[in-house]
Amino acid sequence: MQTEVGRTEPVELVDEAAVRTAAERLRGVAVRTPLLVSPWSSALWLKPENLQPIGAFKLRGAYHAVAQLPPERRRAGVITHSSGNHAQAVAYAARAFGVPCVVVMPDGAVAQKVAATRRLGAEVVMVPPEQRLTRAEELAAQRGLALIPPFDHPDVIAGQGTVGLEIAADLPEVRLVLVPVGGGGLASGVATAIRALAPRAAVIGVEPELAADARESLAAGELRVWPTARTYTTIADGLRTSLSELTFAHLRARLDGIVTVTEEEIIDTARALLQQARLVVEPSGAVATAAWLHRRTELPAGPAVAVISGGNLTPELLARLAGAA
Amino acid sequence: MQTEVGRTEPVELVDEAAVRTAAERLRGVAVRTPLLVSPWSSALWLKPENLQPIGAFKLRGAYHAVAQLPPERRRAGVITHSSGNHAQAVAYAARAFGVPCVVVMPDGAVAQKVAATRRLGAEVVMVPPEQRLTRAEELAAQRGLALIPPFDHPDVIAGQGTVGLEIAADLPEVRLVLVPVGGGGLASGVATAIRALAPRAAVIGVEPELAADARESLAAGELRVWPTARTYTTIADGLRTSLSELTFAHLRARLDGIVTVTEEEIIDTARALLQQARLVVEPSGAVATAAWLHRRTELPAGPAVAVISGGNLTPELLARLAGAA
Repeated sequence: MQTEVGRTEPVELVDEAAVRTAAERLRGVAVRTPLLVSPWSSALWLKPENLQPIGAFKLRGAYHAVAQLPPERRRAGVITHSSGNHAQAVAYAARAFGVPCVVVMPDGAVAQKVAATRRLGAEVVMVPPEQRLTRAEELAAQRGLALIPPFDHPDVIAGQGTVGLEIAADLPEVRLVLVPVGGGGLASGVATAIRALAPRAAVIGVEPELAADARESLAAGELRVWPTARTYTTIADGLRTSLSELTFAHLRARLDGIVTVTEEEIIDTARALLQQARLVVEPSGAVATAAWLHRRTELPAGPAVAVISGGNLTPELLARLAGAA
Repeated sequence: MQTEVGRTEPVELVDEAAVRTAAERLRGVAVRTPLLVSPWSSALWLKPENLQPIGAFKLRGAYHAVAQLPPERRRAGVITHSSGNHAQAVAYAARAFGVPCVVVMPDGAVAQKVAATRRLGAEVVMVPPEQRLTRAEELAAQRGLALIPPFDHPDVIAGQGTVGLEIAADLPEVRLVLVPVGGGGLASGVATAIRALAPRAAVIGVEPELAADARESLAAGELRVWPTARTYTTIADGLRTSLSELTFAHLRARLDGIVTVTEEEIIDTARALLQQARLVVEPSGAVATAAWLHRRTELPAGPAVAVISGGNLTPELLARLAGAA
């Protein structure tokens, strides 16, 4: 493992070998998503992670993290706190291993997401939003459950990195990989794989302008956390989270840059993906494609891949995107 | 090649080797579509051919047929008559080979499809519907163009058969493959591949009740052509065509049965595929899934694959499917 120096605590970065191990584990579990040529240019390819069983790339990291637990620890069960795709990812992984799963969700979480998580066999515990982490830690200790974090863990990062492994294998001539940045797990993993396997490609993170904490952190050279009250204004609900020290260290070492996109660009792109590329994509999943469509002058030329991270949107938003307006 | 006997003219059937040749030709051109587990059961898998560059499986057969032309013949160019997905498939294939392409379309064809075909570089010739075939043959003779039929050709059938090849490779334990039947090219090719490579699986064709000419033909033991005025009542516009002698011979020899679905079942399934499976599917592409959801008692048990043949629908229908009604 590579070590970041000059920090109070050195952070060990995930390496290519860990990503390869994750790929072995994920065989037959995660969909080997194909690259799809975009309807706009033969130089833009789409990596449709919205086709994963739970509708998002999160399955890769969550399953790999559960798979890496020592068997006796795994048997006791797993727990996480999330109101989004990670909740379903952990529930799906736990079901696949036949172990108990608890998901702590904030009061007011979308009813559909709660129901979907329950359908996957998880026990859902509703708590006031501010008690999410503490309640999860409490339950983990009480019941001996392993906490599976959404991004702040090397096994999760290695699992998400398999997206990059597949891109490098399918398009060795790639020169640009665009990847959404929320907590930074996906971008950390993809950058790790691409740096190792397609080193001529730039890996550029994409954030909503309204949640550009990673851009600010990288520019400042230190982790900057934006308050939730601020990032909650973006429609890209999967990207409202800030980086952790671990993902920040990965992005600082391996990412080639960050671009941001507006709310209007995100929605327009989600609509174009639905109507022109026949892909059901949630706002967070559309930002990388939006960057290619609207920020081309800021990007390196050549064959590009935009990672479509997920496709879980509400029926209301789907209807809006399908409408002419 | 296997020969059908007891007919006025024996018909040579496509064999597995031809399908394998087609698969080689199609590498890097057609998307190697993954099997996606359905949201309704872990026993139902979806083969999303709507993810092909032109939004339908038709690319496989058309490209393979163009690839099989002797180079000097191909250089002169290709022609077809179609108002649907086959038009774009041939145009796409011709562009890939850098050869001229003419598409004869009926007056009144959907403006979007005409535009899409032109965008792929084809010359579109509009004629009164009844002159489609004669005009295409006339132009082919005048300009020395090779006519690429939508289904009535061994090379087209072999190309479509690669769908079956991939299913057998990805899910060797498959026991049922459901495939839409229009002109019968896709069903002929898939049945050929599955019979050879996953012989324990039944291959069942699916038709709209309103265009059940293949079911009638197979029951009668002879080709029955339904008049267009009759089949045009189904919303599944890709399945209004009747079989040819060639596809009928394949289905008689290799298909295990036919089931039919209603218009309401087709629409409900297209909506469920969009809203629950995150797949943009045209009515013709939804019939195989509709059969599994609504005709299960008529079908063999076990791991099943429903082929989703395409995803080219009008913006109006997409909006309707995304709506709550």
